[in-house]
Amino acid sequence: MNLNPLIQQIKEDIGYGDITSQLLPDKNVKANIILKQDAYISGLDLVCGICAIQGIKAKKLVEDGSRIKKGTIIIQLNGNVKTILSIERTILNLLQRMGGITTATRACVDIVGGKVRITGTRKTVMRYYDKLAIIAGGGDPHRWRLDDMFLIKDNHIKILGIKENIARARKISFTKKIEVEVENKNQAIEAAENKADIIMFDNMSPKEIQKIISHLKKMGHASIMYEASGGITFENLPEYATSGVDAISMGWLTHSVKAVDVSLEINGD
Amino acid sequence: MNLNPLIQQIKEDIGYGDITSQLLPDKNVKANIILKQDAYISGLDLVCGICAIQGIKAKKLVEDGSRIKKGTIIIQLNGNVKTILSIERTILNLLQRMGGITTATRACVDIVGGKVRITGTRKTVMRYYDKLAIIAGGGDPHRWRLDDMFLIKDNHIKILGIKENIARARKISFTKKIEVEVENKNQAIEAAENKADIIMFDNMSPKEIQKIISHLKKMGHASIMYEASGGITFENLPEYATSGVDAISMGWLTHSVKAVDVSLEINGD
Amino acid sequence: MNLNPLIQQIKEDIGYGDITSQLLPDKNVKANIILKQDAYISGLDLVCGICAIQGIKAKKLVEDGSRIKKGTIIIQLNGNVKTILSIERTILNLLQRMGGITTATRACVDIVGGKVRITGTRKTVMRYYDKLAIIAGGGDPHRWRLDDMFLIKDNHIKILGIKENIARARKISFTKKIEVEVENKNQAIEAAENKADIIMFDNMSPKEIQKIISHLKKMGHASIMYEASGGITFENLPEYATSGVDAISMGWLTHSVKAVDVSLEINGD
Amino acid sequence: MNLNPLIQQIKEDIGYGDITSQLLPDKNVKANIILKQDAYISGLDLVCGICAIQGIKAKKLVEDGSRIKKGTIIIQLNGNVKTILSIERTILNLLQRMGGITTATRACVDIVGGKVRITGTRKTVMRYYDKLAIIAGGGDPHRWRLDDMFLIKDNHIKILGIKENIARARKISFTKKIEVEVENKNQAIEAAENKADIIMFDNMSPKEIQKIISHLKKMGHASIMYEASGGITFENLPEYATSGVDAISMGWLTHSVKAVDVSLEINGD
Amino acid sequence: MNLNPLIQQIKEDIGYGDITSQLLPDKNVKANIILKQDAYISGLDLVCGICAIQGIKAKKLVEDGSRIKKGTIIIQLNGNVKTILSIERTILNLLQRMGGITTATRACVDIVGGKVRITGTRKTVMRYYDKLAIIAGGGDPHRWRLDDMFLIKDNHIKILGIKENIARARKISFTKKIEVEVENKNQAIEAAENKADIIMFDNMSPKEIQKIISHLKKMGHASIMYEASGGITFENLPEYATSGVDAISMGWLTHSVKAVDVSLEINGD
Amino acid sequence: MNLNPLIQQIKEDIGYGDITSQLLPDKNVKANIILKQDAYISGLDLVCGICAIQGIKAKKLVEDGSRIKKGTIIIQLNGNVKTILSIERTILNLLQRMGGITTATRACVDIVGGKVRITGTRKTVMRYYDKLAIIAGGGDPHRWRLDDMFLIKDNHIKILGIKENIARARKISFTKKIEVEVENKNQAIEAAENKADIIMFDNMSPKEIQKIISHLKKMGHASIMYEASGGITFENLPEYATSGVDAISMGWLTHSVKAVDVSLEINGD
Repeated sequence: MNLNPLIQQIKEDIGYGDITSQLLPDKNVKANIILKQDAYISGLDLVCGICAIQGIKAKKLVEDGSRIKKGTIIIQLNGNVKTILSIERTILNLLQRMGGITTATRACVDIVGGKVRITGTRKTVMRYYDKLAIIAGGGDPHRWRLDDMFLIKDNHIKILGIKENIARARKISFTKKIEVEVENKNQAIEAAENKADIIMFDNMSPKEIQKIISHLKKMGHASIMYEASGGITFENLPEYATSGVDAISMGWLTHSVKAVDVSLEINGD
Repeated sequence: MNLNPLIQQIKEDIGYGDITSQLLPDKNVKANIILKQDAYISGLDLVCGICAIQGIKAKKLVEDGSRIKKGTIIIQLNGNVKTILSIERTILNLLQRMGGITTATRACVDIVGGKVRITGTRKTVMRYYDKLAIIAGGGDPHRWRLDDMFLIKDNHIKILGIKENIARARKISFTKKIEVEVENKNQAIEAAENKADIIMFDNMSPKEIQKIISHLKKMGHASIMYEASGGITFENLPEYATSGVDAISMGWLTHSVKAVDVSLEINGD
Repeated sequence: MNLNPLIQQIKEDIGYGDITSQLLPDKNVKANIILKQDAYISGLDLVCGICAIQGIKAKKLVEDGSRIKKGTIIIQLNGNVKTILSIERTILNLLQRMGGITTATRACVDIVGGKVRITGTRKTVMRYYDKLAIIAGGGDPHRWRLDDMFLIKDNHIKILGIKENIARARKISFTKKIEVEVENKNQAIEAAENKADIIMFDNMSPKEIQKIISHLKKMGHASIMYEASGGITFENLPEYATSGVDAISMGWLTHSVKAVDVSLEINGD
Repeated sequence: MNLNPLIQQIKEDIGYGDITSQLLPDKNVKANIILKQDAYISGLDLVCGICAIQGIKAKKLVEDGSRIKKGTIIIQLNGNVKTILSIERTILNLLQRMGGITTATRACVDIVGGKVRITGTRKTVMRYYDKLAIIAGGGDPHRWRLDDMFLIKDNHIKILGIKENIARARKISFTKKIEVEVENKNQAIEAAENKADIIMFDNMSPKEIQKIISHLKKMGHASIMYEASGGITFENLPEYATSGVDAISMGWLTHSVKAVDVSLEINGD
Repeated sequence: MNLNPLIQQIKEDIGYGDITSQLLPDKNVKANIILKQDAYISGLDLVCGICAIQGIKAKKLVEDGSRIKKGTIIIQLNGNVKTILSIERTILNLLQRMGGITTATRACVDIVGGKVRITGTRKTVMRYYDKLAIIAGGGDPHRWRLDDMFLIKDNHIKILGIKENIARARKISFTKKIEVEVENKNQAIEAAENKADIIMFDNMSPKEIQKIISHLKKMGHASIMYEASGGITFENLPEYATSGVDAISMGWLTHSVKAVDVSLEINGD
Repeated sequence: MNLNPLIQQIKEDIGYGDITSQLLPDKNVKANIILKQDAYISGLDLVCGICAIQGIKAKKLVEDGSRIKKGTIIIQLNGNVKTILSIERTILNLLQRMGGITTATRACVDIVGGKVRITGTRKTVMRYYDKLAIIAGGGDPHRWRLDDMFLIKDNHIKILGIKENIARARKISFTKKIEVEVENKNQAIEAAENKADIIMFDNMSPKEIQKIISHLKKMGHASIMYEASGGITFENLPEYATSGVDAISMGWLTHSVKAVDVSLEINGD
């Protein structure tokens, strides 16, 4: 659990000090973090971890990825009022974003059922935390970084072709999977014949995808995994879910997050 | 212009190397960054700056904050194809988020006209870049950090009251403004009588706000600025705009960004 | 309370190890930090904080900003002798500088009485700690950073004039005050008419300042604050204190510090 | 030449931006850094180096350590006015402190003539730059860090005695000198007999020192170097200079610096 | 190409300055880096990159991974003599280690011919540079990090068993391969039946390995890759190479490096 | 005790998480670190320190520098199984390298007996830890950094000569020793006459060295220390040990380490 990005955000926010909260006396208070709408949430351990570092006792009352009702207290805090107020905004910013991603991911996972994976992309803002939020929602993080897996995309193919890219990738390392992004049937066949581990159909209709997968399966390419990508949102997801793919990647999950509403309320000491 | 957060994101994304792009030959290519929808954009100098650091020539063809038509080339790149592809995603992630914020801000600014400021909040994900995107959209960044200005909120008032908080703040530094968040008329009067520089009406209806401002002006509090805040979105903005406030702060601008669609296309050398 | 600059100084001082203290056996000792002259001191919590990080128990016996007699034990330490000796110099360096600043600030504050603020400048060496020492002495930190407040100085005026600078500043953000540095009556009037929040008289005699303030007050500029600056030291301070200004800023407080004398003595275990 | 501490100071000073200078147009100007009093200065290459990093052309017109007359232009700058103004204060802060140290060091060196070294201590604020300023004034930096040399002081002696400390030090490394701080004749003899490389007389009168050195020389300890330390200032320096020591260390050089007066003036473009 | 670890090493080595080289005059010299034994080398671009950052022109005369004769000049330098001498040791330390790894890797690759991969392990000292040296020698880097691939080892199996570990891994992400380390035939069969991508035989004899692979192939597990590991060195490598495995991992390549002999010679200006 | 390099290595190894160990349940286990060969080891406190930071209890059962039998448990661990497994490799990498250096150093120290020092060089990979391992083996770390001592080598002599280099060094600081690397008798005499503290014979035969030392001693240079260097390994060490030198430096100790075999075994909870 890497708290560094969160520590960095607190540091940036506080600057030379939370000058307003420093007006207050040093006293201990209890406070609650409350969800103000129905949602799936995540990041609770991150918040508890960052509180511990700041000397605030934090206890989570629910679990990452669980469905929470509006009005639920999700974390109880106990500690110096100045400290709590000075980290309040950073904590809430994390929870509202991660909760938004987890809620959207869960909604998509529920639509496609257990057979197809919903996966993230690298269209993230806080890579590590965005990926954790996807996982909490039942999704697959896909590549964390550019060194995770080979993903041969249109621009790579334009320069070197599918066959040569796969051949070179295979020589580099046998521990990484090779995925190829294709735009049509011929490319898909070339990728399959060169033993790509995963074929990603980019910006293609569910019908086209279905035809190609069925063709490739007839050709005997049984162990390849298939992924759909490109402009897939909540609305057109059901169609893609039945196109025969194993996974559907959605940039929308992290590039256009709708924050969930959370707030912090001080109770007294 | 602080490029460090962007440099950090590139580093995190690349890890031990963009293993796919490293398959390609070392050759120079031209590439275009293209806007795929009508939008207002920002962050162009950040992108050009980060490209320069990476040895890529980048030339912006439009200006931050200007209205751009779908299909417009906004930045031209020229450099090593491996480098361009390895930073592509980080650049696009920045532009799509900042463009989303700038577009939303501009839309709000256009609604309220020149008389009322649209301001950001600290509900940000990438504080510095989010604030720049708001400025590019014609908005006011509001506090960058907790040490920018005194902002006495409900939790501070609960512990120390308005009068005492203002008195203490005034003793700390005469170079910072003092803003008080109020929830009703009595609090607003107390803040005004203790010479707050700014009064923020939190989660109050436009009508309530109007009444209070009119009352305070009659009392002679002419130099105070008034700000509305809390649950204000594109829909209810016009009402607030005519309530007599000088500024309207909207967390929505940065906590629930809708990314604009941008892509990078390689042209050949 | 930001301990990072102090941690950095310890790290720089120790290098690959305090090779002399490493000759000693591992044993616990008690030690006292003693003030060797009458003085006002500050930075006690910083020292206790840094000791805690190093595993040394530290207990302050006096408070920041209080007047301390020569020979007073200000902090008691208890811990590994090697560790105490390896951080001794860094701790004493901090206390002797901060004490010097606090003592000088307090002396000035006592001269001007409660009506006029004594403020620091950005002529600091350890910005954050220098400012804390000023505050402990009853002074006002003034700007911590260049983004705290607009301060339109001679070089800005030379390029853009007072009126235009203020107009542009006002458009950027309504949360920051605008201060203008003036060198004569006409500039002061221009600043006042354009509603500067603060007017700083730079390198002007107390008499000149008095005349201008009196003129401006007659013109009705009641809410503006006035500040004197430039070459003000302990000697000429009383004159400035009665010139009608609200604040007097003194670079001398931090650029020419006279260290107070503190030492650390080991008592045995 | 390590510019990192200076880069850090600029970063801390600028924060989210020099909001005042950002009001100005982007234009190139010439500027001069001018010494406003007679002094010896240093740090010129540091300033030129930091300017280069910021894209400002800087040309030094004088050399570190040379005697400069009031009114002399010491560095010429040429570059973007916004950048120059945003780094102005940090540059001047460095020059005024380093110049103060160099001037004080030079004055002491001139008093003692070429036979005795004037050395710094670890009573510094910006260790690296303070030491460079001492060197520029003709002084000796003494230990940069705790791992530079063994310096067995009162607290070490209290715990382990002189003989045992030296014996242990000698076993650690033959590449480091061993210095012993003594408070009386017996300690000095013990240090000499155990072959300390340097003996430091701490808080002793010039007469006492003279007697002991003369005794030790008679005993045949010819290759030992002798150093005086403790409360030595400009006033009592001449006496110590003729006590027979090879070096005199003065904490006063860096813990109570009197800043020299430097300013930056913009000339136009 | 990540130069940060190298920059860090130079910084650590130089400390407050290369005090010996600083005695020299500022003058430009030419220098050669010369290989003093027959060897395969690598890291040449890293050295050229670090020189460029330091203002030294560096030109490599040979390529990474090529066989070089004793006495060959591998890099020519041109620049300030003080700078060259201050970075000399760090550069040579890199080249001597990387060259040692590349030479050992190449020797192993030559023994096994093209059919079997020689791979590194995580038994590295400078992870990134050690892996680059393996690649330059024709080897496979295997995992760079713990998040690259699932590698279910004895300790994981002890706690959760093979089947359950694989099942959980499969749910996490479809983009990572799953490797299982086995110690006997039954474990190998269990791994194969649960569709591990790679099976690693740990500390088993070539004969045992051969039998198991042949059994698994008969069972139809055609697409699994097989790897041998544990105590394999130059001596017993040939036997393992004919055991039917696809890859052989050798900790010895990086944990017990024999440095190649390189030196830097200054030619004059 | 500086744990930062170790913390950095763990961070680099873990990346976004030890994805395999994260499959396991959260449970506490006991584990042993076991030496698998006879050896001298070191770094035990570093390992215990890093475990403490990670929340793992670690207890060392032996001391740095002591001779350990094959099969000995050297450290006992107790803590979360996921954490232990995620730091296992970094810990073992440290112990196997440091143990290798300590074992080699001790072997050399035992050969030369107590009269001659075995010293390291700057041919290190992990400077700080490599030096600690040498010390644990009874060796002398020699220079940690380039600012520790003046070491005037062939390239410095080529440019400025021995006499001038020493003269300049002496003027810089009286707290640092001056060592001169010589290649023949004349250079040695020049170094001695200019009062070098240490003379290093580089790449010279034991006989040559013996003759020169004997000549210099006759000339009366009694307090100079003599050091042999260049291509000295375990094999030719005895000859050098009797050549009259005080110290023998061996790059081989750290540039060509043979790792000792250590492993971590989990016992159950």
